[in-house]
Amino acid sequence: MPMIEYEDAPPAVRAVYDDIMRTRQVDWINNFWKVLANHPPTLKRTWEGIKEVMAPNALDPLTKELIYLAVSTTNGCDYCITSHTAGARKAGMGDAMLAELQAVVGMANETNRLVNGYQVEIDERLKRAALGKR
Amino acid sequence: MPMIEYEDAPPAVRAVYDDIMRTRQVDWINNFWKVLANHPPTLKRTWEGIKEVMAPNALDPLTKELIYLAVSTTNGCDYCITSHTAGARKAGMGDAMLAELQAVVGMANETNRLVNGYQVEIDERLKRAALGKR
Amino acid sequence: MPMIEYEDAPPAVRAVYDDIMRTRQVDWINNFWKVLANHPPTLKRTWEGIKEVMAPNALDPLTKELIYLAVSTTNGCDYCITSHTAGARKAGMGDAMLAELQAVVGMANETNRLVNGYQVEIDERLKRAALGKR
Amino acid sequence: MPMIEYEDAPPAVRAVYDDIMRTRQVDWINNFWKVLANHPPTLKRTWEGIKEVMAPNALDPLTKELIYLAVSTTNGCDYCITSHTAGARKAGMGDAMLAELQAVVGMANETNRLVNGYQVEIDERLKRAALGKR
Amino acid sequence: MPMIEYEDAPPAVRAVYDDIMRTRQVDWINNFWKVLANHPPTLKRTWEGIKEVMAPNALDPLTKELIYLAVSTTNGCDYCITSHTAGARKAGMGDAMLAELQAVVGMANETNRLVNGYQVEIDERLKRAALGKR
Amino acid sequence: MPMIEYEDAPPAVRAVYDDIMRTRQVDWINNFWKVLANHPPTLKRTWEGIKEVMAPNALDPLTKELIYLAVSTTNGCDYCITSHTAGARKAGMGDAMLAELQAVVGMANETNRLVNGYQVEIDERLKRAALGKR
Repeated sequence: MPMIEYEDAPPAVRAVYDDIMRTRQVDWINNFWKVLANHPPTLKRTWEGIKEVMAPNALDPLTKELIYLAVSTTNGCDYCITSHTAGARKAGMGDAMLAELQAVVGMANETNRLVNGYQVEIDERLKRAALGKR
Repeated sequence: MPMIEYEDAPPAVRAVYDDIMRTRQVDWINNFWKVLANHPPTLKRTWEGIKEVMAPNALDPLTKELIYLAVSTTNGCDYCITSHTAGARKAGMGDAMLAELQAVVGMANETNRLVNGYQVEIDERLKRAALGKR
Repeated sequence: MPMIEYEDAPPAVRAVYDDIMRTRQVDWINNFWKVLANHPPTLKRTWEGIKEVMAPNALDPLTKELIYLAVSTTNGCDYCITSHTAGARKAGMGDAMLAELQAVVGMANETNRLVNGYQVEIDERLKRAALGKR
Repeated sequence: MPMIEYEDAPPAVRAVYDDIMRTRQVDWINNFWKVLANHPPTLKRTWEGIKEVMAPNALDPLTKELIYLAVSTTNGCDYCITSHTAGARKAGMGDAMLAELQAVVGMANETNRLVNGYQVEIDERLKRAALGKR
Repeated sequence: MPMIEYEDAPPAVRAVYDDIMRTRQVDWINNFWKVLANHPPTLKRTWEGIKEVMAPNALDPLTKELIYLAVSTTNGCDYCITSHTAGARKAGMGDAMLAELQAVVGMANETNRLVNGYQVEIDERLKRAALGKR
Repeated sequence: MPMIEYEDAPPAVRAVYDDIMRTRQVDWINNFWKVLANHPPTLKRTWEGIKEVMAPNALDPLTKELIYLAVSTTNGCDYCITSHTAGARKAGMGDAMLAELQAVVGMANETNRLVNGYQVEIDERLKRAALGKR
């Protein structure tokens, strides 16, 4: 899809671009948003979702970026791996953290399949613990 | 697969069970390990991998559990979601953190597909930033 | 894998190529089939499957292409996304339809994981409705 | 997670429940929303996203439900398959359409892997066609 | 979906059931086929595909069942894992083979994500070797 | 990530490289290991896992490579598909075997989704057979 540059963007798209740059304190727009701008409602809805979900709250921004990167790595989305590796670095991830994250992601993908293959039955004790019960 | 209880386990399996209980400071073994015990080399290799990868280091144990849970949720592995929701709670995750993690996981799975569908080209600037360059 | 051009193809492969061009009313063969032609039984079986499954019936060709594209986007198969975006356009998909399809695909991938993460129990009422019962 | 019933829901959750029932013209709330209600911001954001994305526009509601079902089937999300099979039936899907959808989904998942395995190069002609160019 | 029993099946479905029982030398039909029988063209096409693809040829039946099981485990399809674990056992798989298969599947799912996360560039030497060149 | 060449590698990394070359009887290191070498514990743990899991035992090396390739194809990991196509060829896979493997992988991915979409209930008989019971 063509990318919509700021100069060529209609007001509704510019408003989103402005909010992205303001919120992230950057002076440029990456390709993801420029492509979504072909359908302004998707651009607006996606950005507002990201803005709400990634805002610091019970989890801090670095942890949220690490989670995003873990999912993107599992799904094999190259653009997303690149952009969220960059995002996590900006939020404070160093090389050691990245290496440990990738190790955990790899291990989780491995044990997820061992569980599948052996069709392990869920422990009642784990079910209660997952619900926060003793 | 049948589950190997401590009482019926050969010494090599008991040694792993003992190490699991000691490392995690618990007094029981969950089904995942009891099933893997049908093949002692897989039990030993998997436990040693988990022990190394999940040990606190550049990332703390809670963050590692959150990453594990994010991957398991993406893959739809029910046992893994249950056990790592439990594990993350034990490491300090409260309800608000869980809700925010699931929101980030959902959003990442959404934008991963928007990137796929629109075949977004990776920005050179993001590539450099992902490598930790300016 | 090398691609088998029409000129170099054995009769069994040519017969499939001819049927593809006739059925789709095109005068060229795309790379997918040229690569499958390295194993003529796979070429023939796959083409006959596609031809049967994609033929207009209870669902029209455009709807079938949209479904194909939704799956390919979810799986992140670049060749398939490209070829079925092209196929859907040929069957009548415009830019607005494409944008709405990608929005639905993204949303479905998001809510699929929210369901996973929260391990939502299936409503009896939905089970009956899914079976076409009241 | 516990399910939040209408009677026990805070006003912000009730407002979403009311909007779901009004928009869908039903008199009950399915479990997905009752579970999301544990985190009102996720409930609200997810419902508003669904409402916007699934509204009839360039694609009609049946087509959107079929796409949703195709994704959920690919991902193996049982709750989602059940709820969107039900949703598609309500929007007009009969048994023949369901069977054809599943046939296309199956075929797409097959050919996606044939493309992966053979690492088929994308035809320039398909790239142009996917962009809506001749 | 309702299951179509042999007694209630129309002739076209019975013909497939007979061929399944004859080819596999069994005297019963498993649920997968009874459900597909709701749409006889899908039943016929799927069975004929399976029959062709799983027939002994360059790969023997056991190896083919192991591959089927590896894919089903990766995808987390419980029915498929059960039926192809059974199928592989019938073709000669013992407990040790099953354990080694699951270990390889787990490891492959792990290293697939390490490759994703680190975005490893493909070695020219491996490309040539994959094509069977020196 | 930068690749760590043998010349620049610290002793712990060189020891792994030496073991890889000795075990596989090759005189070079492929990029996967050179990238993992940025985090020596991951390099060592991953290599030792691969070495143990891929060693001939109840399953021979060719079968193990085929399983690895089937998983990598399902996941769409290009590097992994290339390296394990190469590895399988080295272990004896010819063009016909490769074509049959890809056909089985494609078919498994198709029927996995037919099972998902139709939510087929597992036969008691298959459950027993999967456990090796009569």
